[in-house]
This record gives sequence, C-alpha cells and structure tokens, in this order.
Amino acid sequence: MTLLTTTVVPWRFENGTLHLLDQRLLPHEEAWLVCDDAAKTADAIRTLAVRGAPLIGVAAALGLAAEARRHEGDIAFEDRVSAAARLLAAARPTAVNLPLAMARLLAVLGATRGAANGARIAALAAAALALAEEDRASCEALSRHGAAWLAARIAPGPATLLTHCNAGALATAGIGTALGVVRALAADRAVAVLADETRPFLQGARLTAFELQRDGIPVTLLPDVAAASVLASGRVSAVVVGADRIAANGDVANKVGTYGVALACRAHGIPFLVAAPTTTLDLACATGAAIPIELREGEEVLFIPSAHGPVSIAPRGVPALYPAFDVTPAALVSAIVTERGVAEAPYEETLARFAREGEEAWKRT
Amino acid sequence: MTLLTTTVVPWRFENGTLHLLDQRLLPHEEAWLVCDDAAKTADAIRTLAVRGAPLIGVAAALGLAAEARRHEGDIAFEDRVSAAARLLAAARPTAVNLPLAMARLLAVLGATRGAANGARIAALAAAALALAEEDRASCEALSRHGAAWLAARIAPGPATLLTHCNAGALATAGIGTALGVVRALAADRAVAVLADETRPFLQGARLTAFELQRDGIPVTLLPDVAAASVLASGRVSAVVVGADRIAANGDVANKVGTYGVALACRAHGIPFLVAAPTTTLDLACATGAAIPIELREGEEVLFIPSAHGPVSIAPRGVPALYPAFDVTPAALVSAIVTERGVAEAPYEETLARFAREGEEAWKRT
Repeated sequence: MTLLTTTVVPWRFENGTLHLLDQRLLPHEEAWLVCDDAAKTADAIRTLAVRGAPLIGVAAALGLAAEARRHEGDIAFEDRVSAAARLLAAARPTAVNLPLAMARLLAVLGATRGAANGARIAALAAAALALAEEDRASCEALSRHGAAWLAARIAPGPATLLTHCNAGALATAGIGTALGVVRALAADRAVAVLADETRPFLQGARLTAFELQRDGIPVTLLPDVAAASVLASGRVSAVVVGADRIAANGDVANKVGTYGVALACRAHGIPFLVAAPTTTLDLACATGAAIPIELREGEEVLFIPSAHGPVSIAPRGVPALYPAFDVTPAALVSAIVTERGVAEAPYEETLARFAREGEEAWKRT
Repeated sequence: MTLLTTTVVPWRFENGTLHLLDQRLLPHEEAWLVCDDAAKTADAIRTLAVRGAPLIGVAAALGLAAEARRHEGDIAFEDRVSAAARLLAAARPTAVNLPLAMARLLAVLGATRGAANGARIAALAAAALALAEEDRASCEALSRHGAAWLAARIAPGPATLLTHCNAGALATAGIGTALGVVRALAADRAVAVLADETRPFLQGARLTAFELQRDGIPVTLLPDVAAASVLASGRVSAVVVGADRIAANGDVANKVGTYGVALACRAHGIPFLVAAPTTTLDLACATGAAIPIELREGEEVLFIPSAHGPVSIAPRGVPALYPAFDVTPAALVSAIVTERGVAEAPYEETLARFAREGEEAWKRT
C-alpha cells in the first residue's frame, strides 16, 4: 500500500504550547501563532487563522490543554478549564467537531477529578494529542475508502477532480478529507485538481492551491462562478468536498458555495462525494435545517486583505450578506465517505452505524 | 406613466470625440477616458474600461465615428474606416451587439459612397448616435415589459430581486436591461436588490452596487457562492439578469455564473428573467453551443486590482481558468424580455419575430 503523506502540517504542540500556522497570511507568508492559552486559541479560530472543521477541533483541544497548564497551582483549576472549554466551544458555531472536542476533554477532566493538577494537565494534553492522532488516522482511512469509491465510478486513466474550499492538510491533522481523497487517488493515477477560489476568504486560491502545489499535484484555479459551466463542459470526473457538519439524514453543511456545485453535479450526472470523519456527523440534527449556519460580518466580503491593508471592492455604505456555510440536501450527495467506510442513500442507518463505530473506536484509544 | 431615469451615464460624445467613464476604477474613482480613435476605443473595450453588451456596441459605433473624423482628408477613407470597424468588431468575441453595430455603420459607409468625406463622417456619427438612442429607448421599453411580467408573477408588496453581474446604466446607453427592470418595478413598489459580487471583475460589487446606491435603490452585496443558499431561503422574489448573446432557441450567454444562478432558481421555483434588447438576439446561432465563449487571461483571476497595484490571491505559478461567459439553457429561463415584448418557451417563433421587428424598427429610424 502506498504511503499517503503531505509536506503541509499547519500545527505543532511543543512543551505544552500550541503553534498554529497563520492561514490568513497564506500563500505568500508562512508565519506561526503561539497559542499558550485558550483565549489566543479561540481568537485564532474566530479570526480564521486556523480553520477546517477537524483542525478546529484539534486546535481547540490543544489550546485547552495549554490553558490548563497555566492553572496548575490554581485552587479553581477545574472551573478555569471548564470556562475555557466553553469559550473555545463558542468560537465558531457551525462545525460540530469543536463542541465534540471540548466535550471529550471535559470528560477527561471529570475522570481525573481528585488527581493532582499536574497529572490532570498531562491527561488533557494526552487526550488532545490522541484527538489529533485520531484525526490523522481518520484522514488516511477515509481517503483510501474515497479513492476506491471514485476509482469504481470514473473512467480509467487521468482524472480531473473539482473541489470547493479547502478540506486538506490545512483543515485537518492529517492529509485532509477531500484533498486526502485526491492524494489517495493521485497515488494510483494522474490526478489534476480544479480548485474553486472560494470567496470571500479564498480558501481555494490561498490554501488548496498552496498545499497541492507544495505536494506536486497539478492544480488550476477557477472563479467560483465558473464551476457550473466547467462541470457542464464534461471535463470533470468527479467533485469531492469536505463537510463542517452532517445531519442524521445525510444533509451536509459545508463552506457556502458547496450547494451550488452540488446542483450543477446533479444537472450533469457528475459524482458528488463528501469526505469527512465521523466526528463531523451530528445525529442530534435530524436534517440540515437544524444545523446553525454562521452569519459572518459583511466586512469580510467588502474588503479583500492585502499586504497594503484591506482593499475595498464596493461603494462605501453598501452592506453585504455573508452566510459562511450552506446546506446540500442528501438527495444531491452521491456518497459520504468516512474513516468507517462509504455511505450511500438512504443515509440514516449507515451514518448512525458509522457514528457509533467512530465513537467506540475513540473510546478504545 | 412614471418617468424612468438614472443619474448614471457612463458615456458622452462631444465634438466628434467619445468619452467613456473608466469602469475599472469604479466605485472609488470616476475618471473619464478620451477615445478619439478606434484603437483607443478597442482598447477600452478589450480592457473592460467599458463593458456590457449594449454599451460595447454603442461605444464601438461612436469610436468608429471618431476614427472616421481623423481620415477626412485621406484618399483611402473607406479602407481606413473599414479596417477600424474590423479592429473594433474583434475587440471582444461573445457579445453580438459589437459586430452588429459595426455592420450597421459599414452599411452607412456603403450607402454614402460617392458623398464628400465630411458628409460621410456626419452620417456615421448620426448612425452611431441613433444606435445609442435606440438602445436608450429599448432599455425603457423592455424595462416596462419586464416589470409588468414580474408584477404578474410575484407576491404583491415589497420585492427582493437578485441579479448577477451588471446589466444596468453602466452596461447600456439607458437605464439598463436587468437593472432597468429593477428601476421600472421600483417605480411602483419597494424593491431591494441582492447583487452577486461577480468575480473576478466584481461587476456586481463595483458597478451594480454603485449605480443602485447612486439612484437610491437599496442594494446588498452577496458573495457569488451565497446565491444558491439565499435562493433556497425563500427571501428572493425573482432573479433578473442581462444577456450578451441569445441563440435562436432561447439559450442565453451571459456573464459566467449566470448558469449556476439559473440552476438554483429552477431548484426552488423562482422566476428567472432575462432582459436584453433584440440586438442581443443572434438567430444565426441555433443553440447556445454555437456561441463563442471568451476565455480571458488567468491573471485576471489571480490578481485583484487595488490602489496599491494588483493583489495576488494565489501561490505563484498556479494557473487559472477564466471562461468569461456561460450558457444558460432555454429550459431554465422563465422568460426573455426585449423591447418588443416578453417571450416564453418555446422561444423560437417569438424570438424570431422580435428580431425581425427590432431590425425593421431600426431601419425606420
């Protein structure tokens, strides 16, 4: 089996401190943020210095472990850590991995009650690192499942995959979800990627292009508006995207714009594959209608960051509407690939099983 | 009948010279280009300083008239003007108004053979200005037709219209096509506009927002990626867009991204109205497959213009694909409104009649 790797690793945890690659400055500058407490970590999450549902969960966990370290001598240790977990859980609303990661660390906090703070800090750090390792392994497993699913459905020979946003090494603690599937398929055949630029934050232009170029996978940028006509042109083998939260019925919340790509896939019979670890499944949401959709500031649409400061693209005084995610109905999703395997419609039973198996696997670690 | 007007006029023709508002600098700077020959006019068209299918035709005609004036004493007058018409006709490939405008002026050139060059120059200028007046009147007529069509199909009371790109006063010699319909509807009821920002040239953010704000019509900007989910939300009464070329069967070539919006309208039962003068009809194209789609430079995607120079949004060395237009199949179009009235599916017969009537009306002027 070919080893699946990436040269792009946007985080490290050294001496109890979290270091995050500041993704706002990519692709032109590689600077690292030092997050030695929860507030700095929450800030990095809120401002999109770190993003991607799986990586947000991992970063929050490591940030909470860093925070715990600051309170070793504090009599209110547990209160401090719990408050920090609440702060981190609230940093962004849509990805379910974030509250899930906090719930796991709070469980460790509960389980170690009575132990010395030093031991509890070590246990929290170990749990956070286990979460990262779990995500790395999830990425690898789901990528192999996804590549096999694709290989059975697309023409042999060179493939062209289209993706939206960045569900790659920069969004996870491993080789990525959607881009993990790309990497796994690219281990066996020539794969070219068409990357939606993904306005307004330009995750496709800045991040997906960056990490694929770094790993030597040919990537061409598309304005988001061109995706539908490029899909109509017949040059795309399949679409693969990540997910921020998946409802029990298979409705998928992902970066805004995903839904439009899915509609075009349906119109042209192109496989639309969603790649996400089981931590992204939220069975508490019966359908996508129950998933909270983050509404971000219009300013993020009206100004484009540059080395010279924000560049205004609209007349002063004009407002903007920026829902950061959208919901793709399960009916438009060809398959959902997780580290437990591939689910196809009807999704309920298989996703419920995957979620249960995922949870059990984690409990064993 | 309420007078339909706009305060936004992006062109003037003074003393035989064309002046064009440089739309690349909007919304933050209002600078005018002086086009006293065909080369400068072609350059303004090629570089998108002037854009919008109807306005491109008008600008090319006025630019040709300006060019003719430079050759009054030239024995090769007709050759010079013909060559300039060819240059202008080739400045952009997709809009049909451009070659049509050149054909009309060349017909005037042919009809005045034998006359003094001074008289021929005057005839060319008169024909170019007649084209502008025809477009102004077309905009007004089609806008009234379009507003009546919409009023019969959307709920009474305040309306929210979504548009893509800029088919407004900045794209025509009048109140616009899609935005003309907006202005006509706004004369009778409260109308709010959701404007797709329209990457990569940002016509929605820079131009549609500019001209609607100028005319006091509430406008909110949307990242293009948000259109599908906003259409799914039920808050949009109808979509109205312009067209660069319309095939005999009703297939519509318009700014890339239009097709994706049309797919989302179909998925959610939202009226999708195309507003364009009959000069946009190209019966020589049986279907949209025959319409040439301009492929522009990837650089226009990879860099965003700013006062400090171009801002790079992607890693160096990553290419981009930029088809400037896409084709929306007639099956997704609820109606096509022209100055001759409204066509609904099946389109062939009605569009053929509109094209004939439009041509005859022009011949009478």
